Amino acid sequence: MMICNYTAEDYIQKLVEFHGNFAPGLLIGGFMVEIATQNMKQYEIYDAICESPACLPDAIQMLTPCTVGNGWLKIVDTGRFAIALYDKKTGKGVRVSLDASRLEPYPEIKKWFLRLIRKQEQDKDALIAQILHAGKDIYAVKDVIISENYRGKHIPSSIAFCSICGEAYPEIDGKVCLACQGMKIYE
Amino acid sequence: MMICNYTAEDYIQKLVEFHGNFAPGLLIGGFMVEIATQNMKQYEIYDAICESPACLPDAIQMLTPCTVGNGWLKIVDTGRFAIALYDKKTGKGVRVSLDASRLEPYPEIKKWFLRLIRKQEQDKDALIAQILHAGKDIYAVKDVIISENYRGKHIPSSIAFCSICGEAYPEIDGKVCLACQGMKIYE
Repeated sequence: MMICNYTAEDYIQKLVEFHGNFAPGLLIGGFMVEIATQNMKQYEIYDAICESPACLPDAIQMLTPCTVGNGWLKIVDTGRFAIALYDKKTGKGVRVSLDASRLEPYPEIKKWFLRLIRKQEQDKDALIAQILHAGKDIYAVKDVIISENYRGKHIPSSIAFCSICGEAYPEIDGKVCLACQGMKIYE
Repeated sequence: MMICNYTAEDYIQKLVEFHGNFAPGLLIGGFMVEIATQNMKQYEIYDAICESPACLPDAIQMLTPCTVGNGWLKIVDTGRFAIALYDKKTGKGVRVSLDASRLEPYPEIKKWFLRLIRKQEQDKDALIAQILHAGKDIYAVKDVIISENYRGKHIPSSIAFCSICGEAYPEIDGKVCLACQGMKIYE
């Protein structure tokens, strides 16, 4: 069972390096990206949407050309454990999600996914074994069209200087920068 | 001039691999992360905030343990070209931004940063040379305390099933999942 041209072992090593520690969601994410890219073979390039900020963005960033910083990966937090890859022009693509209804044969995955046990109580080895054993069987795959609002990059704005903080910001954001409009990041 | 233990050449190669193409903002981001990490040496671990979704998140993800998927990097889009690293418990940290007022000796950087020319008109080699020549001279560095709202991870919620789409979602999000509350990602 390969994950985007990596063996499971190599992918696990790669994910620990990038993500800082082993995360079941990232191994599952590897399978989700593998399934999605297999379904997008007719497209030379594609963009990605990730419906969860947890784990899944790292699987996409490790295994596809899409990263947060290059704008090809957008995180749209619906709280659902799903990703979509799509053609930027037409919005046509594929959505892959972890399907809870298919988890009965895999109790460790079910307990992890539905948060039925605490992290400290997880049997990590059994969980990994079940994810690998399940292979592609626990995912729902659906053709989708991404709504226009969620496609592509935002239009670059000209740059202005904020009259409050003095820093450069996109003029399109308003008379002062968004931070000075009320995002109190710093005390 | 090293960028988080990489020579500039090695870092540029690494960024092209991860980001898919050369981006001036990512080379600049490398210097910003280098400066920030040098200022955070007294902390064993730290979290990151990125004030722009463009380029900078990839510099942080390549050069620090903080990624979007592991939750240690948060993007808080103020439109300003700045990053902050901070101690999760106290919020104490450092903010590094590209300082437009220091760009007079570096016209190619100024033209790029203030979007005074189109991408096709950029002299990429001159731009890279000026970024490397400027070294750490074009950045503003400030001690900050991150407001509590922007610190740490969100609290994990128990999982419910959405009565509309049927998928698992964090119960804390409401009676149905956020997608079914009105985020129309898919047509």
